[in-house]
Formats: sequence, structure tokens, C-alpha cells
Amino acid sequence: MSDRSLNTSRSSCCLLQPKKLDKIAIVFGELIATAMLMFLGCMGCIHTSLFPNSHFQAALNFGFVVLICIQCFGCVSGAHLNPAVTLASYIYNMISLPMALAYFVAQMLGAFIGYGLLKAVMPENSIYSEETPEGVCVTFIHGNLTPLQGVFIEFLITCVLISICCGVWDPRNAKFEDSVGVRFGLAVSCLSLTAGQFTGASMNPARSFAPAIWNGEWSNHWIYWVGPLLAALVTSLIYKHAFRREVEESELDT
Amino acid sequence: MSDRSLNTSRSSCCLLQPKKLDKIAIVFGELIATAMLMFLGCMGCIHTSLFPNSHFQAALNFGFVVLICIQCFGCVSGAHLNPAVTLASYIYNMISLPMALAYFVAQMLGAFIGYGLLKAVMPENSIYSEETPEGVCVTFIHGNLTPLQGVFIEFLITCVLISICCGVWDPRNAKFEDSVGVRFGLAVSCLSLTAGQFTGASMNPARSFAPAIWNGEWSNHWIYWVGPLLAALVTSLIYKHAFRREVEESELDT
Amino acid sequence: MSDRSLNTSRSSCCLLQPKKLDKIAIVFGELIATAMLMFLGCMGCIHTSLFPNSHFQAALNFGFVVLICIQCFGCVSGAHLNPAVTLASYIYNMISLPMALAYFVAQMLGAFIGYGLLKAVMPENSIYSEETPEGVCVTFIHGNLTPLQGVFIEFLITCVLISICCGVWDPRNAKFEDSVGVRFGLAVSCLSLTAGQFTGASMNPARSFAPAIWNGEWSNHWIYWVGPLLAALVTSLIYKHAFRREVEESELDT
Amino acid sequence: MSDRSLNTSRSSCCLLQPKKLDKIAIVFGELIATAMLMFLGCMGCIHTSLFPNSHFQAALNFGFVVLICIQCFGCVSGAHLNPAVTLASYIYNMISLPMALAYFVAQMLGAFIGYGLLKAVMPENSIYSEETPEGVCVTFIHGNLTPLQGVFIEFLITCVLISICCGVWDPRNAKFEDSVGVRFGLAVSCLSLTAGQFTGASMNPARSFAPAIWNGEWSNHWIYWVGPLLAALVTSLIYKHAFRREVEESELDT
Repeated sequence: MSDRSLNTSRSSCCLLQPKKLDKIAIVFGELIATAMLMFLGCMGCIHTSLFPNSHFQAALNFGFVVLICIQCFGCVSGAHLNPAVTLASYIYNMISLPMALAYFVAQMLGAFIGYGLLKAVMPENSIYSEETPEGVCVTFIHGNLTPLQGVFIEFLITCVLISICCGVWDPRNAKFEDSVGVRFGLAVSCLSLTAGQFTGASMNPARSFAPAIWNGEWSNHWIYWVGPLLAALVTSLIYKHAFRREVEESELDT
Repeated sequence: MSDRSLNTSRSSCCLLQPKKLDKIAIVFGELIATAMLMFLGCMGCIHTSLFPNSHFQAALNFGFVVLICIQCFGCVSGAHLNPAVTLASYIYNMISLPMALAYFVAQMLGAFIGYGLLKAVMPENSIYSEETPEGVCVTFIHGNLTPLQGVFIEFLITCVLISICCGVWDPRNAKFEDSVGVRFGLAVSCLSLTAGQFTGASMNPARSFAPAIWNGEWSNHWIYWVGPLLAALVTSLIYKHAFRREVEESELDT
Repeated sequence: MSDRSLNTSRSSCCLLQPKKLDKIAIVFGELIATAMLMFLGCMGCIHTSLFPNSHFQAALNFGFVVLICIQCFGCVSGAHLNPAVTLASYIYNMISLPMALAYFVAQMLGAFIGYGLLKAVMPENSIYSEETPEGVCVTFIHGNLTPLQGVFIEFLITCVLISICCGVWDPRNAKFEDSVGVRFGLAVSCLSLTAGQFTGASMNPARSFAPAIWNGEWSNHWIYWVGPLLAALVTSLIYKHAFRREVEESELDT
Repeated sequence: MSDRSLNTSRSSCCLLQPKKLDKIAIVFGELIATAMLMFLGCMGCIHTSLFPNSHFQAALNFGFVVLICIQCFGCVSGAHLNPAVTLASYIYNMISLPMALAYFVAQMLGAFIGYGLLKAVMPENSIYSEETPEGVCVTFIHGNLTPLQGVFIEFLITCVLISICCGVWDPRNAKFEDSVGVRFGLAVSCLSLTAGQFTGASMNPARSFAPAIWNGEWSNHWIYWVGPLLAALVTSLIYKHAFRREVEESELDT
């Protein structure tokens, strides 16, 4: 075990290096990164008659926001941005329990601050409009779907998201880091394009919680906790045991 | 021959390493990857009056789905996702005949499961609509084209797809793996944007078979087997003999 | 200090190497790069009934223009393109004061020339139209926002931009340069998509100054100096002290 | 001189290695690559009431087609695809005069074949429509512009294109090859998005010649030879002398 973690931490900048970075900076970075995610991501979702951003544009943009967060804070905190990702990384033995809890608090707080900032700088009529009466960026299940279908979709797309994380974290991929931000960003764009119109494509309890608490909109909110967290648990366990393979020391040096 | 395969397998994570990964995990990975492709790709193609995804968005999205599949399972199974790609990799001596057959079964089964999942989580009226009366994601030849033109287009665009694979597999490119997923994804987006409106831009028998069997739509279905498989055969043979060049050992070490 | 700068300058092509490149070529490169930015970026913003470029297209395009500038002149001058970025790089000790001032002059002059070229090759009615009565590419605060909200938005999105620069400049990321242009380009696309409709998403005094002087449009022009420069100052100081970590020599060699 | 060319040819796969690849394969690869460019690029430009591809989509697509060509044949022939690029590479001493002429012939022939294939597989009414009466993909100067403005725009955007090539070919960038296709593709997308509506954003005599000869449309055709070739001449000379810097052997090994 210790061999492996040494292994990965040496070759990968995106993993935590608690000896070198003091933990407060890491958690602070995660907080700012999640605030960025909410502020920019939700600003791109503004959809009124004056600012007619399409679903296509908003979904593509959300992925690019993730790219920005990884670019800015990937080397500081790993830019999890998402309690489900933190849970998966905990199961992957990449983060300790206390740090995972600190990440969770930072993510919730960051999301809360990011959405608050958005409300501060935007005119009221772009947050609440005919198209988004509950408030911009609030996630909900489309009327044509049952809540069960909704939680199943959130479960499945978060399974894909966590598989992507597991692929990035796989020791065999450790040397392919240059374009991680681009790949991850476009992947999130894809998942938002795909499922955004049905469930909001949250995949992230923190991302759904912040707009919900600021606007007092809690209908079907449980879906955005149960679906993503269950997916993180199931996917990281399966991937770890079925697909993850270690790279031998000798190969690393080649 | 043995020298060459050693050569490529060492420098490339996306090639098979049957000694380290047990084969069941590899084939299982290919199955899940193909299921992902169908589930996400076809969800992004949903096109009704309620969910008006444009051709532009759906085609771009299909490429991003391929990016996701490569990111998640490229290091597990190579993420062929496509019997035509598996045929080409067999001609390239990168996979044994029994494994190629196992891949084929996994791809057909995975595509079947992926499309089935989509039908389970989506409301009926988004699978069948005025815009897609045969069922979402069913590939067919546009009425303005003759079947012969259709099979020719599928043949040509699959030739391009297999050329891309051959370019990725070329020993001279073995060290450029970081952004393979991005390049491959955008290339598939391009082929879908280009030919999607004429033939559906399938390039993949498994991808066309699953919607066909679930919806019982078999008109011109032969095109999606003959075009892609013939293209895989022709292109991989030409590229192998005309363009592929080995890299000398001494250069690899530099 | 001297150790650090040696460190980064060796491993990064985008940093200045004044010994090898004579300084005139560097400053000349920065001038051409900024002219490119204005010429191509603003041509993509042309929005008339004849050439109906959408906000989506123009914003995506602006990011791709930045990609081009980095690709062409990243290795010559670092392709700052922006006095705010130059200020941040000065605070990061990556550029001397005289060179920073030379960059500033080159950026202002380059932006002026680039916008002038655009006016020369474009018909009058595509520069001034019903949609852009003040002249294409002039940045202004949307009528629904107060100037204070506007300067706050410009401040916040420039904070993000400078964080991206700091992430790129971080010694831990020095080896990840291959896709810097793509990541930076898509990040600028994202910021333009997000804030473009509200403030023009300038983040750059030179980019706002050139259209203003050519068209004599100075309303709220101060915002595009105060917001970005203040953001550059604050962000680079915070990132430098809270998040930047040095890489040890021994690790670099691995 | 000999030192330098050794230097670059060793570290870059995209440069020619005439000793290892027989020259016929190289020229044949360039021919197929240019045929691909015309076939896929022009298919994506089809714009009729039945297949309503927008300028946005067609321009983005054209860049992705270039990405595909680089991915498939970058390591075979360098994927110039364009007599202007070949001229610039000749001025850069990267190709001999006889090979440059062979490339030119291959590009003209490849473009001719690619456009011919498109006419063969597409229904007549998608090649000639109300929106494209002269034939799809024919480049012309928009009626609002004078021919002089047109040739100036083609000159300027080809200057940018050649600057990108020079950036890619710069010895300091030789190690950053992984994402070359993505960067180049998005850059061409950008130039097409920017100037496509005004001049067709050809930047390439071969790309303009093929549709002209197939459709007998020669109005202002000289622009697409004078603009790009002059730009290639001027830009490669300026970049070579003002900005290009050699990398010392010792640094390459680090």
C-alpha cells in the first residue's frame, strides 16, 4: 500500500502532497475552486429573454468551467469540486478521512459563496425569469420523468463521471496529465449536454445544494444526494477491483 | 514480428497487455465502454419538440462520448467500441483472433444493454417522436440518397476513422498519447457533423445493430455492416503496407 | 530567488529568455500577437443582419484566437496580450520592470494597429450596424447592470483569468506545456461565454482601449482599467503566497 | 545548417525523414490527406434547406477536418494540405525543391479527387442549391467587399496560418507535439469562423482550385493564389529571421 501511494504521488501533480503544501492552503484552494465552479457555471446558465443562452451553450460552458477549475487549482487541491469525487478518492485511498471531511465542508461552503456572489453581481431579473422561475441553476427533474427515472439518470451519469476520475487516477495513466483539464472539461460538457435537460446533470450534491438553499427550492432535492453519492461508492469499488492495475517500478523509469 | 509487438506494447498503454490484465476484465471493460457509448450517445440524439437537440449539438456530443469512453476504458481494453476497429486491430496484429471474437461479442452485448438502459430511464415520448418515428438513434439513409451512395459514404467515412486509428497505433506516434482521447473525440464529432445527416454516420455495426433490434427497424441495415467492415479491411491493409514505419529501438530511448 | 527563476526558465519555453532572444524581437512579437488578437477577435464579433454571428460563436471564437496567439508567439514573448497579465507576471518576478513597460506599450500599440487593420479591410456597414451602433467590439456594461456590478464582474472574471495564468506558471505545472494553448483558449472562451453579454468580458485594458479610441466611445471606460488591473494585483499576490509551491531540483530530474 | 536539420528531424515526427520513408509513400499520403480535406470539409459545408448546416457548424467542422488529416497523415507527410504551407516549409529549409513540387502536384490532384468523390456520393441538389448556386464550397468574395479588401483579408489570415506553422516548426516547440493536431485544428476553425463569411477563408490555392475547376467558377479566383502564396512568402521569411531561435543540444537532452 505504502509503495503504491508513493508511486502515484511522485508521478502525479494532481494528488495531494500534504508534506509540502500545508493543509489549510489545500482546503482553501478547494473552497475557491468550488466557488468558481458555481459562479461561472451558473452565470453561463442564465436564460432569460434578454440573455438567451441555449442549453447547448450552457452545457458546453459548464465543462469549460470545470477545465478552468482544474487548470487553476488542480495542482493545489486536485480540484474535486464535488463530494461524490471526494468520496471516490477516499475509497481509492488517495485522501485521508479527516481531509475528506474538510474537503466536503470546503465544497459546501465554496458553492454557497459562489452562488451568493452571482446573486450579488447579477440583476434580479436574470436570476429569476419566466424560463427559470425557481432561480437560475436550480436542478430539478423534468416533468416528463418520474423521480425514480431521475435518480437513475443521476446515478448513471455520475457513474460515468467517477469512471473518468478513476481513469485519470489509474497508475497506468499517471504520465498522461498534460491535457487532463481538457479531457475532463469536455467530458463534463458531454454529460451536461446529454442529461442536462432531464435532471440538470448535477452529479454533485454541493452544486445542487447551493442554489437550493439560496432559493428555498427543495423539491426532489434528495435525488442529488442519493444518486451521485451511491454512484461514487459503487463505481470506485468496481473500478478499483476490476480494472485498476499497478504499474511496475521498472516500467515507470522507461 | 515479435520484436515489433514488444516494442509497441511497451510504449503504449492503450494496447493490450494480456499478461497483466486478466482477459475477463478486459472484455468486461469493452462491454461497459460500448454500453456507455450507446447510452450517452443516443441520449444526446434525442430530438423532440420538448428536447430540441440540434444535429450540431448531437454530433459534437457523440464525439465527446467517444472521448469519455477512451478516457475511462482506453487503458483497460483500448476502447475499440466498434467491430470495425477490432477487425482493423486484428489485421494490425495487435489482438489475437479469440480476443477479437470476444471483443465482438462484448461490443454487441454492450450496445444492446446501453440502448436498453436508455429506453428504461427515458419517457416513451422522447424515444419515439415526430422527428424520430423509428426510434431515437436508429441509423438510416436519407431519402435523397440512393442505398449505393449511402454505403459508399459509410465506407469512406469509416476509411477515415480507421486511418485515424492507424495513425494513433503507428509506432512513430506511440509517445503522443496524452491527448489521444481529445483528438479521437473531435475526429468522431467531425465525421458525425459531416455525414450524420446523410447516413447517420454510424461507422459501427454494433452501434447500428442495437437500436435496430430494440425497435425492429431493419431497412437498409446491411449498409452498416458492409460499409464499415469493408472499410476496416481495406484501410488497415493499405495503411499497414504503404504508410506504417517502425521506430528503431535506439530512437525510442532518446 | 535566483534559484527559482533559473529553475522555471529552464523547464518552460513560455518564459522569457532574454539572453537568447534579443529584446526587440520579444517586444515586436508581443505587438504582433496583440494585433492578431484584436484583428481576429473583433472580426469574429461582427454582428449585423448580413453576418449574424451569435454570442455563442463570437465568444468561442475569441478563445480560439487566444489559442492562435499563444501558438504563434507563446515561445517568443509568452503571448501576454494583456497589461493585466503583464502586471501579474511582474509581481511573479517573471519579467523586469523595463520589459513590463515595453510590453505595455507594445500591447497598446498592437491593439491599436489590429483594430485599425480591421477597419481597413471591412466594409463600413459591418463595423457600425444596428446591433453594434458604437462600433464592433466596443465593450460596455449592459443596461440592466449598475456600473458597480459591472466593475465587480470584470474584477471577478479577471481574477479567474489571472488564476489560470498562475496555474500555468506554477513550477509544478512547468512540465505540462503541450496543451497550454488549448486549455487557455477554452478558458477564455468560457469567460467570454459567461460574462460577455454583461460586460463584454474584456479582462484586458488594451483590448477595450483600442475600439474606444478608434470610435471615441468612452462611457464607463474606467471599468476596463480598474477591474482587470486590480484583479491582477490581488490574485497574483494571493496565489503566489497561498498556493504556489516550488518543485525540488531532484524531482525535476525524475 | 546540417546540424540544425538533424536536430529538428530527430525530435519531431512531423518532419520528413526521406531516408526511412520512400518518397512515393510520402507524396501518396499527402494526396490522400488533401483528398480527405476536400471531401470531408466540403461535405460539412453543404447548406440547403434540407441540410441547414450553419456557418458556425461548417467552420468549426473544417478545423476538425484538418485535425483528422494531421492525425492520419501528420507522421507520413507532415499533412501540409496546402501549397502555401509547402512554400513556407521550403523557405524554412524543411523540404527540398523537388519534393516541394511533388507535394504541390499531390495537393492539386488530391483536392481534385476529393471534390470529385463528394460530387459522386451526394445528390445533385445538395451540391447546387439556392444558398450555393455556384456549387458547394466554391470560395468567393462577399458582395459587400471590394476584391482588394478580399485579397487583403486572405493575405492576413494566411499570415496567421503560416505563423502557426512556424510556431509548430520552431525548434523550441519541437517537444510539444502531442496536441499539435488539436491546436492546429482549432486554429483553422477560428480562421474559418472569423473570415469565412467574407472570403470563404480559403488560405489555400488547392482548396479553392478544386471546386472552381469542377464547377467552372473562376470569378476572383486569382485572389486565392496571390493572397495565400504572398502571405506564405512574407510570413515565413519574417518569422525565420525575427523570431526563430535554435535550441542548444545540451538543452534538448535535459
